Amino acid sequence: MRLSAYFLPTLKETPAEAQIASHRLMLRAGMIRQSAAGIYSWLPLGLRVLDKVADIVREEQDRAGAQEILMPTIQPAEVWKESGRYDDYGKEMLRIKDRHDREMLYGPTNEELVTVLFRDAVKSYKALPQILYHIQWKFRDEVRPRFGVMRGREFLMKDAYSFDLDPAAARRSYNRMFMAYMRTYARMGLKAIPMKADTGPIGGDLSHEFHVLAETGESEVFVHKDFINMDWSQRDIDYSSDLQPMVDELTGKYAVTDEKRDLEHEKTLGDNLVSARGIEVGHIFYFGTKYSKAMNAVVNSPNGDVTVEMGSYGIGVSRLVGALIEAYHDDAGIKWPEAVAPFRVGLISLKKGDAACDEACEKLYKAFGREVLYDDRDERAGVKFADMDLIGLPWQMVVGPKGVAAGVVELKNRMTGEKSELSFEEALKRFAE
Amino acid sequence: MRLSAYFLPTLKETPAEAQIASHRLMLRAGMIRQSAAGIYSWLPLGLRVLDKVADIVREEQDRAGAQEILMPTIQPAEVWKESGRYDDYGKEMLRIKDRHDREMLYGPTNEELVTVLFRDAVKSYKALPQILYHIQWKFRDEVRPRFGVMRGREFLMKDAYSFDLDPAAARRSYNRMFMAYMRTYARMGLKAIPMKADTGPIGGDLSHEFHVLAETGESEVFVHKDFINMDWSQRDIDYSSDLQPMVDELTGKYAVTDEKRDLEHEKTLGDNLVSARGIEVGHIFYFGTKYSKAMNAVVNSPNGDVTVEMGSYGIGVSRLVGALIEAYHDDAGIKWPEAVAPFRVGLISLKKGDAACDEACEKLYKAFGREVLYDDRDERAGVKFADMDLIGLPWQMVVGPKGVAAGVVELKNRMTGEKSELSFEEALKRFAE
Repeated sequence: MRLSAYFLPTLKETPAEAQIASHRLMLRAGMIRQSAAGIYSWLPLGLRVLDKVADIVREEQDRAGAQEILMPTIQPAEVWKESGRYDDYGKEMLRIKDRHDREMLYGPTNEELVTVLFRDAVKSYKALPQILYHIQWKFRDEVRPRFGVMRGREFLMKDAYSFDLDPAAARRSYNRMFMAYMRTYARMGLKAIPMKADTGPIGGDLSHEFHVLAETGESEVFVHKDFINMDWSQRDIDYSSDLQPMVDELTGKYAVTDEKRDLEHEKTLGDNLVSARGIEVGHIFYFGTKYSKAMNAVVNSPNGDVTVEMGSYGIGVSRLVGALIEAYHDDAGIKWPEAVAPFRVGLISLKKGDAACDEACEKLYKAFGREVLYDDRDERAGVKFADMDLIGLPWQMVVGPKGVAAGVVELKNRMTGEKSELSFEEALKRFAE
Repeated sequence: MRLSAYFLPTLKETPAEAQIASHRLMLRAGMIRQSAAGIYSWLPLGLRVLDKVADIVREEQDRAGAQEILMPTIQPAEVWKESGRYDDYGKEMLRIKDRHDREMLYGPTNEELVTVLFRDAVKSYKALPQILYHIQWKFRDEVRPRFGVMRGREFLMKDAYSFDLDPAAARRSYNRMFMAYMRTYARMGLKAIPMKADTGPIGGDLSHEFHVLAETGESEVFVHKDFINMDWSQRDIDYSSDLQPMVDELTGKYAVTDEKRDLEHEKTLGDNLVSARGIEVGHIFYFGTKYSKAMNAVVNSPNGDVTVEMGSYGIGVSRLVGALIEAYHDDAGIKWPEAVAPFRVGLISLKKGDAACDEACEKLYKAFGREVLYDDRDERAGVKFADMDLIGLPWQMVVGPKGVAAGVVELKNRMTGEKSELSFEEALKRFAE
């Protein structure tokens, strides 16, 4: 993409309403604009990141055996009355009446709707296990939306739902999702620590939150030092094997949010206890028959009718974009990990209009294909460097008249700041599509 | 994907509520389920088609120079009051009050919201032309939703918006979208005829609808015979060239919906006039400064401030899935064109449990990757054939014990019904990923 034609309204000034780094940088880098309180439009640069994050989430859900569906945003109130949550849910639920005065709502979560889909489709225990997921916009009418996409009202969420014949099988589904989450975060370059969690309004007796450590995190967390030093590289997971040992290893070490502290236990940890700030990026629940019983989701089996065991598994996809920035930025701007960067490389022409410089840039631009953003504007070098640092592409390739004459270009790594020189031939190959 | 584990609840009976082929077949083939009147959940098979249709729309928008953004589903009422449409829009607009009693709405279209994005971001004529699009769920509260996804309330739409400095430039943007639409439909195997159209509540003085001919079409259309015999293969389009001659060629021939008939002109056509049924699959508008003037979308230029010229361009993405089925089905089920088929090939094992048969199927299944649906169920051949015809994958590969012994498999083309025999080696390569 050529920057001269790209819809990328960067801001020099820091918007007054933005209190945290991700909000500030997403506005300044032209990724999002607020359309109403807690409701955002995603501009081209932001949407590219959102799509890449969603694709990683999707791939890891598929790998773990979950199947993608797409439920609507607007739900009928009836199914929430069946489960008994319609009156309980409170003011965060956006309630709507249609033209025929029927009660509807904008889905804040989908346990009810997916249970209806399941019970109407699946009659036999032979079809189990099933894990269904979708990636869809949700709405929660926060009383005070803030922090940009970190606590918005309309947000993109991946929510999965598992259906099993008995608690042991349900535990296997839970473990699959648990490990899929670990892989998902690791692929994005995030160190997410699983923590014992309250089940809250979803219900159930087994639940974990996943928190990314970042100085600007919203909650205080207390974790065993081993998590800090853990090997966070992606694990290869055989989903047909017993995952319990891996899950036990990851949940055996102390890791809790503020509300779940065990001060007695903490005394025994001594120097191994670390306190830090965390951002919640996922929450998984096993809640047994809470919804299937109320809503009559039953399969037949050799032992007669069985009410299915369920779990639900959420990742805030739009929130992850903010969390990534909280984890990866400096004073100059964002520092995207490669897997989620909007473009892999930024190509900077130091002298637009210089024939040799233009020719070199055009060659590189064509070779790099969809993963290059080419700053072909007629602007000062300083402006170009500042904008490129702000939007945070992992690599910056700088092409100037002197370098072109000498047959070299400069390459900068945004994450480390390291610079190196490449021959033009090496450069052509470096990011070839 | 293995059918034994796939969430594919096909129906033997025709659902009573479904009046047209696409609605009936989408329910029977397990593509969708109704979650509320005019509101559908997309099951795995349906979502695969929806995604492929959306991807083709997206690729052709990108090719024509449009840039993808994503605006939210929920909009503040204020921007609609700015344009003056809030009171006019009527009961099809789903109006909502949030917890602070602020007036919101579920977007039925996005002229207002995108105009705000544009005016806040673009100040100089140098940034023009711009075409922004998004693919997002919309809601129109139809008084009587029906025909499944063809006239739903919550539906997926691609809507693009162009911003130009003067009417001549706006016409060029219009022509780009016009030709992008022709390519989009052609890639899906649809013969879409552009027709002069009323501008309706969007306003403006230049507008075309695109109609696919199908016996079950909702409206009567009258077209010149040349459209029926036209070469509908994809055209290569150079978007940097003048597209007016191509557009003139396509709009020069008579083609109108019922409301726009010119009976005098029709008399001159004689035998060249054909009457048929059409399904609307796209609508494009040039409406000048209708919104930019009311909402003050102005850029500076050497000649002073200029109110930008705008157009909007819609394709019903979820509706296209229904239109495709209306155009491609028979009594046995759907006949997907390859470009939008949920899977390219269905692999049918005639004897599950037969060692040689199982082994052959597993080899083919692995070779074909993501584009194969393998019917590995322990079911009668007749059931498998009927289900495969119903869901309509373009190719069916049938593997039976006799064939395996002779080293051959049978291949059936769903569209033509033609059958042929392939050696196992040829079969392995035929759909290799």
